[in-house]
Amino acid sequence: MNSAGEPVEAALSRAAGQLSEYQSKRLLAEYGIPVVDEILAEKREDVLQAAVDLGWPVVLKYCSSQLTHKTEQGLIALNLNNPEELKEAFERLSSLAAETGLEGAFLVQRFIRGDRELVAGLIRDPLFGPCIMFGLGGIMTEALGDVTFRVAPFSRAQAEQLLQELRSAKILGEFRGQPAVDREILIETLMGLGRIGLDHPEIKELDINPLVIREGRPVAVDALVILDREVPKEADRGVRTEGLGALFEPRSVAVIGATAKEGKAGNDVIKNILANGYRGDLHLVNPKGGRIMGRRVAASIEDLPDGIDQAIIILPAQANPDAIRACAAKGIKAVVLAAGGFAEVDENGSSLQEELARAVTETGIRALGPNTSGHTSTPHNFTSSFFPLGRLPKGPISYIAQTGNFATHTMRSIMSTEYYGVARVIGLGNKIDFDETDALAYLAQDRETKAIFCYLESLARPRLFLETAAEVTKKKPVVMLKGGSSEDGARAAVAHTAALASDRRIMDAALRQVGIVQIHEYSHLILAAKALVRMPPPRGNRVAFLAPSGAMLVALTDLCRLKLGLTVPRVEERTRARLQEISPSYIRMRNPVDIWPAAAVSGVEFAYREGMKAVLEDPNIDAVVPVLMMTDETGVPDLTFILDLADTHPDKPIYITFSGEKKHMDAARDFLEPHGVPTYPLIEQPFEVLSILARCRGAMER
Amino acid sequence: MNSAGEPVEAALSRAAGQLSEYQSKRLLAEYGIPVVDEILAEKREDVLQAAVDLGWPVVLKYCSSQLTHKTEQGLIALNLNNPEELKEAFERLSSLAAETGLEGAFLVQRFIRGDRELVAGLIRDPLFGPCIMFGLGGIMTEALGDVTFRVAPFSRAQAEQLLQELRSAKILGEFRGQPAVDREILIETLMGLGRIGLDHPEIKELDINPLVIREGRPVAVDALVILDREVPKEADRGVRTEGLGALFEPRSVAVIGATAKEGKAGNDVIKNILANGYRGDLHLVNPKGGRIMGRRVAASIEDLPDGIDQAIIILPAQANPDAIRACAAKGIKAVVLAAGGFAEVDENGSSLQEELARAVTETGIRALGPNTSGHTSTPHNFTSSFFPLGRLPKGPISYIAQTGNFATHTMRSIMSTEYYGVARVIGLGNKIDFDETDALAYLAQDRETKAIFCYLESLARPRLFLETAAEVTKKKPVVMLKGGSSEDGARAAVAHTAALASDRRIMDAALRQVGIVQIHEYSHLILAAKALVRMPPPRGNRVAFLAPSGAMLVALTDLCRLKLGLTVPRVEERTRARLQEISPSYIRMRNPVDIWPAAAVSGVEFAYREGMKAVLEDPNIDAVVPVLMMTDETGVPDLTFILDLADTHPDKPIYITFSGEKKHMDAARDFLEPHGVPTYPLIEQPFEVLSILARCRGAMER
Repeated sequence: MNSAGEPVEAALSRAAGQLSEYQSKRLLAEYGIPVVDEILAEKREDVLQAAVDLGWPVVLKYCSSQLTHKTEQGLIALNLNNPEELKEAFERLSSLAAETGLEGAFLVQRFIRGDRELVAGLIRDPLFGPCIMFGLGGIMTEALGDVTFRVAPFSRAQAEQLLQELRSAKILGEFRGQPAVDREILIETLMGLGRIGLDHPEIKELDINPLVIREGRPVAVDALVILDREVPKEADRGVRTEGLGALFEPRSVAVIGATAKEGKAGNDVIKNILANGYRGDLHLVNPKGGRIMGRRVAASIEDLPDGIDQAIIILPAQANPDAIRACAAKGIKAVVLAAGGFAEVDENGSSLQEELARAVTETGIRALGPNTSGHTSTPHNFTSSFFPLGRLPKGPISYIAQTGNFATHTMRSIMSTEYYGVARVIGLGNKIDFDETDALAYLAQDRETKAIFCYLESLARPRLFLETAAEVTKKKPVVMLKGGSSEDGARAAVAHTAALASDRRIMDAALRQVGIVQIHEYSHLILAAKALVRMPPPRGNRVAFLAPSGAMLVALTDLCRLKLGLTVPRVEERTRARLQEISPSYIRMRNPVDIWPAAAVSGVEFAYREGMKAVLEDPNIDAVVPVLMMTDETGVPDLTFILDLADTHPDKPIYITFSGEKKHMDAARDFLEPHGVPTYPLIEQPFEVLSILARCRGAMER
Repeated sequence: MNSAGEPVEAALSRAAGQLSEYQSKRLLAEYGIPVVDEILAEKREDVLQAAVDLGWPVVLKYCSSQLTHKTEQGLIALNLNNPEELKEAFERLSSLAAETGLEGAFLVQRFIRGDRELVAGLIRDPLFGPCIMFGLGGIMTEALGDVTFRVAPFSRAQAEQLLQELRSAKILGEFRGQPAVDREILIETLMGLGRIGLDHPEIKELDINPLVIREGRPVAVDALVILDREVPKEADRGVRTEGLGALFEPRSVAVIGATAKEGKAGNDVIKNILANGYRGDLHLVNPKGGRIMGRRVAASIEDLPDGIDQAIIILPAQANPDAIRACAAKGIKAVVLAAGGFAEVDENGSSLQEELARAVTETGIRALGPNTSGHTSTPHNFTSSFFPLGRLPKGPISYIAQTGNFATHTMRSIMSTEYYGVARVIGLGNKIDFDETDALAYLAQDRETKAIFCYLESLARPRLFLETAAEVTKKKPVVMLKGGSSEDGARAAVAHTAALASDRRIMDAALRQVGIVQIHEYSHLILAAKALVRMPPPRGNRVAFLAPSGAMLVALTDLCRLKLGLTVPRVEERTRARLQEISPSYIRMRNPVDIWPAAAVSGVEFAYREGMKAVLEDPNIDAVVPVLMMTDETGVPDLTFILDLADTHPDKPIYITFSGEKKHMDAARDFLEPHGVPTYPLIEQPFEVLSILARCRGAMER
């Protein structure tokens, strides 16, 4: 037997190239994936005997570990019904194979006439490593692009969920008189592919195309395994928790590069620390010595006392490596590196950053940055931010930001527009040490953090990040805006799986898999955050809403159903009866609630209060949104009743929006938001937020 | 020859049922649609001769005008290569056909092994009449649902555009070594289907499935025509322009049901008319006579002078029909019917509405309503609104609203939050006479109206509406929120075309086809409107933007590309050089523009002014959005430069958004918006608006 049939282990041990179709399926079979009945043969008589053994009709294929496109090369003959047809096909394929010069043998298969064609596969993603793919197969696989991914390993529940993600998932059900696909076998197939990916780092790509469905049973009819030993492996450094106390709850802090000059970072950082009421020891370092804001200044790091927790280093880029070493020598546990001019700029900067990273590794110090805008820890009354922010409002929201915005203008926007506060805000900068995975792990156990919002453009340790996130998202909402997702890396594609795997698709699948809720609008980092200050995420996606307008009811119902994945369910008869009771009889009440007639008859406050109460008490409802009518003519109610309703229904979020006059809407916001009842100027916004947070709750309860 | 082969005209003349496959394809062929070579035969010898005439291999099908699912019934044999196979198939189908008892004959076809399968069809939509369908065919047609629609008739350009709308449009190009599909033949096929739909009202559905592609040429391999004479036909009443002057520019107006009682509609309407500075004659009618606000009151309609233009009737529902007759008798040309309690309420109301409609038809008077919230015509200083609104701001935006909101709380919201004004605002009410088509026709020729925004839940005369819209949208932007689109009517489906045709899909296609830009958020009726007050819609979808944050640049670029259909193109080298000139050298400038470094070095005003100027002058850019940084620390610029840039670049819209402190953002809005430069609090909003208005411009220039 030639290389087409050499043992799988031997074939896998080769450095590159691919397995033959036969070998590929042997490997699949080893992992419990059902493959078509087939026999490898070289001689005509063996081929004929194989057909007899398998039963007619058969398929004859040429099989070689050098062959990728046998259909295009004519090296396949389908539906052979008798020895004559098989012999003819054998002669034709023999002479074609001879022309190609490929080394191989013949593969005789039972001919399976399936009723559906699927595709499944494995790809080694540069970020996440082994990922499996599943979707619609056949000749249109790539044209349709209806596939979905998972990073291995994954749970059975994840495999089950994956099957529901296809646009055309209904073909897995009963289809044109054929039974539903055996989901158990499909799941076993997908999990087998995942195990192959984990067990065999030498496999770069694996395609099962088609995975044919016959009478409900999936069978791998063709398969291709591509090898590559040169797969980069992620560094396995784990989450380090030491030094994080020094970073977020420092008992003592030194500002290296402190200055008396107004408007300089080395001055503003001191003001920020003082403005936030920091209670630990504050040391200042400047070669000139003297005093700044009345405080004595040390001339060098060496002059500092031993055992300071944290140093904020505000020095030119080149001075940073030495400063780190000096800090470490004095027993400083963590540094914040404010300087830019490293890898984000040019190659010189990259070299400098490598030197910096060496200093950090050698000393074992914890480092945030470089190129960070600093971090904030309001429970500890501390910030290392050097943009003049003043006192930051305290609250339960934490941000992990691969941008300086949350220490500059975006934070200013939050502080001046919103009524919520923050717990920890982390500007990651260039991430030579402390990265988003460390941040996530820290915030997971942080009692002051109720919800985590991230803006990230890259992942320093992608697999570790996913592992960490998978745990965190069970405890707290994690919402992420992933920047840069429109720039898909072009991939050299041999197999379907690779052709269909884009950076964005795999990232989307990976985040979903670990319960991170992805958003696509920067503003939602703020709009969704304020909904979590006092209230939990909604238990599900079932919303009731009240509006003073049929048009708004209709338009918002459309939006919920068509775009946001929310349902507007029927309420219980008891609820409906109560709604009817408060309303004139000419309108038949239901959810969504047309509150205008009730408001016209009984006043705005009565109508909204009783209407909201009714739907809040309904077990089919997870969240309630009133569109408050606010005009002089229709009456502007005292909104205390909303605070009361929020108190008595702490399990169901209430988000407020408006229609009417700006002055009343502004006043309502200023009254409600300090009490943790979020308000939104546009009527769509509360629903967008519900859509995000219902997904968070789903992740927490998975 | 039995009914399977009776002449097409004879078959079509039957009242119901369907055509046989053979007849269906004869009809297609008459309309220039390529069909497979085939011969109808009854006897075995004729079948064999047919195969010889057509050439091997062939397909044998049983053909009957009573047969719909021949594959499921086994009445088809593919790929018959010789007389033996054909004879065997003939015997098998003969006995199967005998079992079914169907009357029919045998259809012998050339066997076409295609490389792609498409589907095309025709459906008679209850709203729009004949609509064609096109998409991905084969056994997965319905599972994939990748189809698109057009209302017949449609232009060649529309047919061409339709081909680009499929998700998997790339299969029409070169595919797996096969040439691209002949688009000319495809277009002829689609237009032929459209003509069939227009010529044959008795055809209810028509399926071509599959439309097989072989070597780039489409061929109808199977077809099914379903007949139904009972298709409802739209009343053909055309657009009536008489009386519209009396409605929108009345020289004299009577309020029937005027009252001195504060807070009543019959009082508020008078106040509104006076508040808006109406200059025509104002008459009041109330049985009590006397005076209201110092004006003499007539005791009855009969007591009014002759020849008044318009009457606003604010009377109980039951009194309306008589009032209309009385108005008509006095020569009043148009009435506004404020009362509710008609078809929107119950069956009694429906009867009353029918009586009302009779009064309108008999008298020939023009009527707005009933159940209308009135209308507004600011160029004429007039309103019939009876919700206390005061003086409405004048401007170029007109609204057609199937809701009272634009005469009540939504208008209040606009008046108190926004700086733009309106021209005509029409609350359609129950549309017994004046409807959205009349409104569109009126606004099309209205010099005061620059852009039309609609909220509609139904179309009174759907085909006429489309015809009218097709012309209007070439002149002015028409933006529509179509309410109720998530409640798809369930359709009894025999054919694929019907199974795939949902109300929403056809509505979406119809609106797109005539250049109406559909939106899905109520708030966009306001956010998009204010962008058109001073500026034109953007010439295309190419946007440049400037932001003080890499994260915002990345997140907004993703949003533009992935969700909004906008491009963020490369700028010319000259533009790039200018951007580089104003910026520190460490950052390489491009579009989108990172303006923070330039602002840090040269100040916010200089950086934004010069940056915006550079991209505004670039021929690759259609619109410019700066995210203005507004904090005390970074400096708050004098924004006069933005007005100057808007003056010097009147062809390119500039929309403003912000990051920073609320007080500065509010001040900027209050400064810029009165000059027609729109501002948006959230950074995503200007891009959402650009996406909408670029589509409007595309429609205008189609």
